[in-house]
Amino acid sequence: MTQDTTNPQAAYIAAVELEKAYRLINHGPTVLVSASHDAVVDVMAASWACALDFAPPKLTVVLDKSTRTRELVEQSSQWVVQVPTLAQMQMVHAVGTHSLHQQPDKLQRAGVGLVGMPESTLPFVQGCSAWLACRLVPEPHNQQAYDLFIGEVTGAWADTRVFAHGHWHFETAGPQWRSLHYVAGGQFYATGEAFSSGDGP
Amino acid sequence: MTQDTTNPQAAYIAAVELEKAYRLINHGPTVLVSASHDAVVDVMAASWACALDFAPPKLTVVLDKSTRTRELVEQSSQWVVQVPTLAQMQMVHAVGTHSLHQQPDKLQRAGVGLVGMPESTLPFVQGCSAWLACRLVPEPHNQQAYDLFIGEVTGAWADTRVFAHGHWHFETAGPQWRSLHYVAGGQFYATGEAFSSGDGP
Repeated sequence: MTQDTTNPQAAYIAAVELEKAYRLINHGPTVLVSASHDAVVDVMAASWACALDFAPPKLTVVLDKSTRTRELVEQSSQWVVQVPTLAQMQMVHAVGTHSLHQQPDKLQRAGVGLVGMPESTLPFVQGCSAWLACRLVPEPHNQQAYDLFIGEVTGAWADTRVFAHGHWHFETAGPQWRSLHYVAGGQFYATGEAFSSGDGP
Repeated sequence: MTQDTTNPQAAYIAAVELEKAYRLINHGPTVLVSASHDAVVDVMAASWACALDFAPPKLTVVLDKSTRTRELVEQSSQWVVQVPTLAQMQMVHAVGTHSLHQQPDKLQRAGVGLVGMPESTLPFVQGCSAWLACRLVPEPHNQQAYDLFIGEVTGAWADTRVFAHGHWHFETAGPQWRSLHYVAGGQFYATGEAFSSGDGP
């Protein structure tokens, strides 16, 4: 558990085993990407984030060259991928449609709260359901040609009210905890009903 | 519209403009990947597929070295990413947990039906909600080091009962049309309720 007393969510946050970290994004949610460098912090929305490997866990994320977040990632070689909730939809859309380049108070306007996590200097967005701290696996060609960044997940956490013991519990958590799945034009789908194929391990 | 009279879905299939093809997978569904070479056809499930660019549309997909589908992709340099439905969950789990290497009649056992699309030699899985024909963008380092394949989308189609005029219509289509979002251990979430941030274009 984090001991950050400034974070009202702190009592509910637990570390997620790295080998199960992929489960935090395996259902394809729209995520928030946050990064900082030299006291500048930015947060952007990204629909194009995806698991890449189990152990060590890796993920990919597409960061457009126009974003300030990408510059901070390039400068610091680290970032956070976090899973926002339905309760945060307006904030997610705001940070996904405004740039820190044009709007220096973007995060305050969007209502983004930032918190720390133990043994990390990264900025984590408060109120999310899960967080994955990532370290850049440098692949300059992918970054330049495709805006594609590969990160190794070095730490993972979740809010135990919605993800515990290696599993999402959207069914029993309140509807405000559902993940977001962006389509286009401000339209999202929330994660829906749970189903089992009946023959899983 | 496809003129394939062997496909009972044919009357409902319409081409999707390439610049809107990303919308077919932007909500992060688990997909099916199909490929063929020298009369061998395989289909696998993939949670790790993601849009990569708008125009020309590109996507990434992770294809493990153990899969026969990957070999067919390497041999033919093309594949289909298709979006299966809740009605197809058992089939998706079956093709995702069995290999053509060990089970030569895998597709028949799983109940996979294959159909054609106009001007394509690729195998398309019947009953899905959307299909994206992909041509390999060769990146041997990504393929070897990360099992990561980049595809340019050369054609896209959808079943107009659930995707029409550039938008998903899960709200009005029957629940069996919902996309699948795999987590682990045979557990899926279906795409859920629609929400608008209220300030989209």
